[in-house]
Amino acid sequence: MNSTEDNSPDNLTGAFLRCDVMAADCPSRKVLQHLTSRWGMLILVALLPGTQRFSSLRRKIEGISERMLSQTLQTLEADGMIARHSMNTIPPHVEYNLTEVGAEAAVKIHDLVKFIEDSQTALLFAQQRVS
Amino acid sequence: MNSTEDNSPDNLTGAFLRCDVMAADCPSRKVLQHLTSRWGMLILVALLPGTQRFSSLRRKIEGISERMLSQTLQTLEADGMIARHSMNTIPPHVEYNLTEVGAEAAVKIHDLVKFIEDSQTALLFAQQRVS
Repeated sequence: MNSTEDNSPDNLTGAFLRCDVMAADCPSRKVLQHLTSRWGMLILVALLPGTQRFSSLRRKIEGISERMLSQTLQTLEADGMIARHSMNTIPPHVEYNLTEVGAEAAVKIHDLVKFIEDSQTALLFAQQRVS
Repeated sequence: MNSTEDNSPDNLTGAFLRCDVMAADCPSRKVLQHLTSRWGMLILVALLPGTQRFSSLRRKIEGISERMLSQTLQTLEADGMIARHSMNTIPPHVEYNLTEVGAEAAVKIHDLVKFIEDSQTALLFAQQRVS
């Protein structure tokens, strides 16, 4: 966002105020995609218990590469979902935590994740019915 | 799934019973990816009000192609999230609705979608702070 854009609440566009994810140009589609990306979801859920270091996130989220973790953290930070804190130490110490908005989104994603984890049995039977 | 497999709750594998999305091989990761794919989310939310025809879904979800709608409906059907009903008429009449599991998942996704739609202002300010 550059300084020539006025995004104060008084100057928000109509499209922005009437945000509707079914509309092709709604900015919420992009944010939703980041939040619900393969690794985005898992990072948000992994940060729910509190502040964590990069290495701890990497251990927690099985299968994520260093590159994908770093890239997804940057995207979620740009969306305002997580905050990055870098301490001026040697070796460098970097911590991440959820912002207020990020925490609310993470709770909702966790709710969906728990539901899917818990309903694997029901899903399996449903898959049997249609196959 | 064939009839020689016993998938009753008593015979489920350990991995299946201890379903954990943080584990790289957990089947819930695949299902979650389908549910939260760009079009998967919007189809589930669009079906929340009730049964709909292919053409009605296509009109509702701006920007979706016929191919992507058809493909995503098939994936969600295979996961047991939606049911497809084809009437033997000319021209063909095909309807879709959420299954019980699909409806529960759709409510949770809708909750996330509504939150993101409603919090665009907060998100924008958060994005400004980090940029």
